[in-house]
Amino acid sequence: MSSGIGLGLLGVGNVGSAVARHVHARAAMLERQLGRPITVQRALVRDPNKPRDASIPADRLTTDAAAVIDDPNVDVIVEVLGGVEPAQQYLRRALEAGKHVVTANKEVMAAHGVDLLQLAADRGLDLYFEASVGGGIPLIGPFRQDLAANEIEEVHAILNGTTNYILSQMAEHGRSYTDALAEAQQLGYAEPDPTNDVEGHDTAFKLAILATLAFRGRVAPAEVFREGISQLTKADFTYAAELGYSIKLLAIAKRRGDTIEARVHPALVQRDFLLGQVEGVYNAVRISGDLVGRAMFMGRGAGPEPTSSAIVSDLIDLGHNMRRAAHNRIPVLLDRPVRVLPMDEVISRYYLRLWVKDRPGVLARIAAICGEHAISIASVLQKEVDPDARRAELVLLTHDAREADWRPAIQRIMDLDVVPEVASVIRIEDLLE
Amino acid sequence: MSSGIGLGLLGVGNVGSAVARHVHARAAMLERQLGRPITVQRALVRDPNKPRDASIPADRLTTDAAAVIDDPNVDVIVEVLGGVEPAQQYLRRALEAGKHVVTANKEVMAAHGVDLLQLAADRGLDLYFEASVGGGIPLIGPFRQDLAANEIEEVHAILNGTTNYILSQMAEHGRSYTDALAEAQQLGYAEPDPTNDVEGHDTAFKLAILATLAFRGRVAPAEVFREGISQLTKADFTYAAELGYSIKLLAIAKRRGDTIEARVHPALVQRDFLLGQVEGVYNAVRISGDLVGRAMFMGRGAGPEPTSSAIVSDLIDLGHNMRRAAHNRIPVLLDRPVRVLPMDEVISRYYLRLWVKDRPGVLARIAAICGEHAISIASVLQKEVDPDARRAELVLLTHDAREADWRPAIQRIMDLDVVPEVASVIRIEDLLE
Repeated sequence: MSSGIGLGLLGVGNVGSAVARHVHARAAMLERQLGRPITVQRALVRDPNKPRDASIPADRLTTDAAAVIDDPNVDVIVEVLGGVEPAQQYLRRALEAGKHVVTANKEVMAAHGVDLLQLAADRGLDLYFEASVGGGIPLIGPFRQDLAANEIEEVHAILNGTTNYILSQMAEHGRSYTDALAEAQQLGYAEPDPTNDVEGHDTAFKLAILATLAFRGRVAPAEVFREGISQLTKADFTYAAELGYSIKLLAIAKRRGDTIEARVHPALVQRDFLLGQVEGVYNAVRISGDLVGRAMFMGRGAGPEPTSSAIVSDLIDLGHNMRRAAHNRIPVLLDRPVRVLPMDEVISRYYLRLWVKDRPGVLARIAAICGEHAISIASVLQKEVDPDARRAELVLLTHDAREADWRPAIQRIMDLDVVPEVASVIRIEDLLE
Repeated sequence: MSSGIGLGLLGVGNVGSAVARHVHARAAMLERQLGRPITVQRALVRDPNKPRDASIPADRLTTDAAAVIDDPNVDVIVEVLGGVEPAQQYLRRALEAGKHVVTANKEVMAAHGVDLLQLAADRGLDLYFEASVGGGIPLIGPFRQDLAANEIEEVHAILNGTTNYILSQMAEHGRSYTDALAEAQQLGYAEPDPTNDVEGHDTAFKLAILATLAFRGRVAPAEVFREGISQLTKADFTYAAELGYSIKLLAIAKRRGDTIEARVHPALVQRDFLLGQVEGVYNAVRISGDLVGRAMFMGRGAGPEPTSSAIVSDLIDLGHNMRRAAHNRIPVLLDRPVRVLPMDEVISRYYLRLWVKDRPGVLARIAAICGEHAISIASVLQKEVDPDARRAELVLLTHDAREADWRPAIQRIMDLDVVPEVASVIRIEDLLE
């Protein structure tokens, strides 16, 4: 133990550098608040010769994780590597070596968070992870502390800035998915391989973390139903807007009797609710608690500065614990077996866009199929007519339908000879006041 | 000290009853989380014979505050009396008697919070006050913990549900102020004497608390500039909407060099920002931090359920501290002398609605006065013309102007013989992306 608070940084990319820089720049303020200085003692890098910010002296850089974790001057491991391995192994070893942990790693926390929290608790150590969900937006803190009295009934969230930027561009500027993605890549908002974001994996990790906290029982990322945004087309944004909706990649977790729903997919959301108006790289989380009612948290969900806001704030809180020698203050209370409802049982409304042959009786046949599967149609809009091809574009909105009923119905509609193309199927998520 | 956590309740009105009821109903969950039960041991009431909820046994009710504070089974005083006195005296005595405190009292925390926090710190006790601002919305927690790494640059907030309900009714349904107030009173959202809400006192108390935390220096409620909503008229909401603005009672705190601005007044806010769309009894707080950037928190700002969400969550956090015997974990760090900028020095844009005589040269005379006071006009709309009275309605929007320049200018405009009436003067607060 050093007389100050010694940090061991695992990862000195954009986020790690920002943490080092801000801890350095705020040294006086931090020492005043915590009664002792915070300094980066060791930092794990891939290439120690790469030029970087001078806030970490060169002789503290190493390519050996063990040299960071086992450094006797390191009290706290700050992990910003991302990815499950080797990060998970490092965090486990850090806790076993008696080091506190602050992590921004959503993959590790989603897949192994419960076990790591238990390990930290067993050793009387702190494990902070505010930065793992929603960047700098206070979420883990509120879920574990400020809203602790509540039974959380619902979470509706936009948790991925990359996809929200793409969807905003498609909605506001009529861009195609491909063009909007290319632009996001150019601006550095999307990775060269965007799969993790656009297919909803990133969002599912974050939802697993929030749902685990909200429902006080382990929700594994693999249990979260997941659908990405790459199938969305310009036309859907136009029609959604006409109908008073936005299209968002939503993370949804709901209590349904003694089960929960946990799903990530594009959804039509009412435009006159604030969640439907969160644009660009912003994230937002809307919760319903039995006492607090509806509440919403919004802010920048990614980037070195917002993420280091969460990490440095976690470090300050950990510093308060050090002063009082009181760690692991909030116990891991995951005392409820949580069963995730199979997607077949989920009930939702649907938006359906399809091209039909321009002849009488087509709508009747579609409606008959829906009826046979216990699905009622809420509204029908006939949109474009293509006289040359003798086909017309229909937009249908259904009332609530079970997924298990919907799937065979849509298959039968697709198989109709009078339906050359089912262009889009998107769930509708009607928020309540 | 009892073996559980004994509560002494000061006040058993709507909020106090809700706290007692929820603590009672959640007994098993609370005991599982905290390792010991929470029970109401004593409760101060005005009339012990008034029929009330059965969650507090009749023999625990008393009309004597000392009997609550000095009860050896009481570990925590929960104060929901409201008003500065006698609440402040009770809280002081409670801390001196070694009791922790959870309060919902904004008046006390705004006027005496810093001293009470210091007293709690000196005695190694906890003083929680999440419920004092924004009802159940996590604000004090995020300001003290989750955002602690940030230098807060700006706070823009809607902190009073009563006035926001009135303003929403005026905007959406074209109601007059008087009608909207009467409706709010009928629904129980406004008091029979609404002064505290509509004149902005309530909002100023809450802003003083938030500004003190945000800028880490004491901001007294008397230092907060304050203007109420009773002068607003239907016509202003119509014109504001036309111009793309909402009208909100805003609480504004900004860092300006080595001073701060702290003010509460009606303001035009851009309608395409989420803050401009917070309607009804909802509250919202938008902050700018140097690391996190813009973030916003929204939810129900008042009412027994949201308020008890904050109080019971505070009790849970206090219970965690008890387990670890680690109180007063986050020190009161108000180490910066904060000087509030005199209102004369504040710079703002203005919306001005006035009736002028319908004759040539009127606008030139108004523009000339503005020019002489270093105020430039951003836009002029000629609205209604009343041909019988031979007068026309003008709406002017200015560019940034110093309050000290604006006041004599508007006085000179009012004195013009060609200006029979200056109908409205409202500040414009342009939010930044």
